[in-house]
Amino acid sequence: MDASIEELAALVGGRVIGGPSATHITGAAAIADAQEGDITFFGNAKYLPALRASRATCALVPDGFDEAIPAVQIQVANPTLAFSKILEQLAPPPIVFAPGIHPSAVIAADARIGKDVAIQAHVVVEPGAVIGDRTVLGPNVYIGHGTRVGDDCKIYASASIRERCRIGNRVIIHSGAVLGSDGFGFEMANGRYVKIPQTGIVQIDDDVEIGANTTIDRARFGRTWIGEGSKIDNLVQIAHNVVIGKHSIIVSQVGISGSSRIGNYATLAGQVGVVGHIEIGDQAVVAAKSGVSKSIPAKQMWWGSPAGPIQEQKEQHARLNRLAKLMERVKRLEEQVAAKGTK
Amino acid sequence: MDASIEELAALVGGRVIGGPSATHITGAAAIADAQEGDITFFGNAKYLPALRASRATCALVPDGFDEAIPAVQIQVANPTLAFSKILEQLAPPPIVFAPGIHPSAVIAADARIGKDVAIQAHVVVEPGAVIGDRTVLGPNVYIGHGTRVGDDCKIYASASIRERCRIGNRVIIHSGAVLGSDGFGFEMANGRYVKIPQTGIVQIDDDVEIGANTTIDRARFGRTWIGEGSKIDNLVQIAHNVVIGKHSIIVSQVGISGSSRIGNYATLAGQVGVVGHIEIGDQAVVAAKSGVSKSIPAKQMWWGSPAGPIQEQKEQHARLNRLAKLMERVKRLEEQVAAKGTK
Amino acid sequence: MDASIEELAALVGGRVIGGPSATHITGAAAIADAQEGDITFFGNAKYLPALRASRATCALVPDGFDEAIPAVQIQVANPTLAFSKILEQLAPPPIVFAPGIHPSAVIAADARIGKDVAIQAHVVVEPGAVIGDRTVLGPNVYIGHGTRVGDDCKIYASASIRERCRIGNRVIIHSGAVLGSDGFGFEMANGRYVKIPQTGIVQIDDDVEIGANTTIDRARFGRTWIGEGSKIDNLVQIAHNVVIGKHSIIVSQVGISGSSRIGNYATLAGQVGVVGHIEIGDQAVVAAKSGVSKSIPAKQMWWGSPAGPIQEQKEQHARLNRLAKLMERVKRLEEQVAAKGTK
Repeated sequence: MDASIEELAALVGGRVIGGPSATHITGAAAIADAQEGDITFFGNAKYLPALRASRATCALVPDGFDEAIPAVQIQVANPTLAFSKILEQLAPPPIVFAPGIHPSAVIAADARIGKDVAIQAHVVVEPGAVIGDRTVLGPNVYIGHGTRVGDDCKIYASASIRERCRIGNRVIIHSGAVLGSDGFGFEMANGRYVKIPQTGIVQIDDDVEIGANTTIDRARFGRTWIGEGSKIDNLVQIAHNVVIGKHSIIVSQVGISGSSRIGNYATLAGQVGVVGHIEIGDQAVVAAKSGVSKSIPAKQMWWGSPAGPIQEQKEQHARLNRLAKLMERVKRLEEQVAAKGTK
Repeated sequence: MDASIEELAALVGGRVIGGPSATHITGAAAIADAQEGDITFFGNAKYLPALRASRATCALVPDGFDEAIPAVQIQVANPTLAFSKILEQLAPPPIVFAPGIHPSAVIAADARIGKDVAIQAHVVVEPGAVIGDRTVLGPNVYIGHGTRVGDDCKIYASASIRERCRIGNRVIIHSGAVLGSDGFGFEMANGRYVKIPQTGIVQIDDDVEIGANTTIDRARFGRTWIGEGSKIDNLVQIAHNVVIGKHSIIVSQVGISGSSRIGNYATLAGQVGVVGHIEIGDQAVVAAKSGVSKSIPAKQMWWGSPAGPIQEQKEQHARLNRLAKLMERVKRLEEQVAAKGTK
Repeated sequence: MDASIEELAALVGGRVIGGPSATHITGAAAIADAQEGDITFFGNAKYLPALRASRATCALVPDGFDEAIPAVQIQVANPTLAFSKILEQLAPPPIVFAPGIHPSAVIAADARIGKDVAIQAHVVVEPGAVIGDRTVLGPNVYIGHGTRVGDDCKIYASASIRERCRIGNRVIIHSGAVLGSDGFGFEMANGRYVKIPQTGIVQIDDDVEIGANTTIDRARFGRTWIGEGSKIDNLVQIAHNVVIGKHSIIVSQVGISGSSRIGNYATLAGQVGVVGHIEIGDQAVVAAKSGVSKSIPAKQMWWGSPAGPIQEQKEQHARLNRLAKLMERVKRLEEQVAAKGTK
């Protein structure tokens, strides 16, 4: 990013106040994080003290703003919207990977590679794999035997997808994610755990995004299945035979145990744990760090460990906060009763 | 998988009811997940509604089953067992990696490579390393200086094992796992953390399995040690100098802090955290999401955060569930006592 | 390590008691973990039973120690200090990576590579990247477009750093860590989540250490920023626009949500979760497994989920432990009041 304050004001239809409009802006940041050369935006009155202390060189403020601040102002109708516009226009260009296969990539003779695919250095594509048109495979990516990847996917450096998995179109898989590792299943026999073969697959439908270092195990049989449009954050664990519906959100460090099913438009917040073989309904929301040990009906919000409906949990928390007072009341009652007993 | 219903019935000694036995089956799945072309099994009466709604083309049901279901039936004595047999017989063949060293692998001149080893593309084996007979190293695997890997191991794509570690025989290490990274140890000196050298190793005994993206740090000195036959799931953190006994189960996202010791045949369920320098006894079980802050005797089951014996924890939960009622009882007592006081 | 007991005693100025001083020592370990050939140390009276049962060949004990133990003793003034000295002197030499670029590495023509850099096999360095003097890039490491890595860094096998990030000097990044993956941000539009571009960067200042398989997302705009000297353990999640100050400690499996700010010299213990858009003050400490849902003032210690000041939390725990007794007291009161009522 490199533009003068004047140019930025023109871009968002704003008015420059309080400084030299020729100064160049080289970055954008939130109020508290902004450094010299940055533009920031003031979208919420509670951040006024922060704005006064901010090191930003320029700030987008609402029309009619009349506080003294160190930054040069651009006054606009909607600073938040204007900031988004500036970010969009001035963001660095996205990295483009030119189509082609790097000579260090190892592609099986019978793998089917689509049109305009970009396969980068040290990629391995095993026999029988299929890579769709315009898909990008980053450095060190591994695509196992017979795995099919759709069109327009982006698979970042060092992601690994094992054999026979199916990845839809426009899927984004971040670095270090592992798809198709064996489900965790053992039987005890003669004092030793014997591995149960995990012969199923992982299926990822269109428009799914999978975070860095997330792991999704292959099914015992059948498939572990992530539905269309669902978004999964970093370091999430999805066990074998889990099914996640469409357009659900799974935040970082969530763990979902084997064979559980998550509905459509559900949200699991960070560090939630879900036991195996239960169902979380459509549009259900589970608050951060909850431990879910039984099925959740559609549209409910649950919280806690073990988790329950959030209204009940909040009432219980309120009761717990009154526990000290309850103990005093019981003590007083005991004194009163004792006093009457001796009368 | 591709077999007619008739062939599958013959395989399990069952009887086809209610449909064309020539129909081909191409997959296997649980009742709720089954699609057209799949075979499923009915092993538990509570799943009858699900079976009626299942899209499975064929279902294994008990002899004498007389409900109307959309799927073609194969009646057998034990549907669960029959399903396992079908899975076993018809599972896709496991991927076999032919012995040999891919030309892109970088193997130190003095590394010792056993017989019939399969070393795949872009592997790095450092000086002094030893790879046992028939072991498979997947693409992009890293084996550090002087590390010894036993016979018949499978190390999947992009796993990294740093210097001087010792891996037993028949060990399975999934993609992205990191063994031998530095333990997390620092000393504060003059306002800065100074790194404490981590000069020990990681030792993994025979028949251990380690999940995808799990991390096992090398010891401060001596070793971090995983005993024979123990199974570790994905995204687990094992800190420096931890010792895990034989045949223990560590479920996904567990974290074990430095120098703690887990016994034999113990189980730590998902997302459990264990503080440093404690002992969890043989056959102890820790329920999911528990936070273990002190040692657990052998054979006990603990739960909660901070964790305690499960029976006590359950009683405490029952008491908490009676808290609203307790508050009402105290209020009534106060009214009664006050009423008497005014008499 | 290989030295006689006599040599080790000379090294620490100790006196050999109870055995042949010519015996060779080949390892060092804690009392409970020591095997034949190991030296151990006795630094805490509570470990005396363990020392009696230890398989160590030699033990450092305090001057005047007069218990019978199986190990040969070296008596010294301070066994703990003596043990550290022995470890330091006899630790295996650290692995050295000779400067040079492995022929299998793929380095963009316009990347700037400093002096005495060691770039190992299968590394990829993209166009516009800068690698500082004496920095080591382990096998399969990925350095994205325009990313700058400082001097004297160590980046271990299979770590990935995406485009435009800035890494300071003397930074250590362990295997499998992912820096610069997209922040997790979506907007709902017409029933589908639309990706919000994540155009910022990750900035890591001097002397930071980042654990294995940890993920640090790039900022929505501006930067996700880890301050000088902070140390981050394995499997930690740092979301977009998080700022961590100087010399803070983030223990394994912690997750910090978007835009939260951690001060200087703060400590977040294992498995802590932090919601977005809050501040944790300088020198604050958060106990293990806590869930932090609001800002924490400087120098306070918090615990629990939801977290609160540790003193309040401990008092509340003490109250909860008296709940059974409270219920009995209420029951007795009811009986007493009822008895009086019938009088």
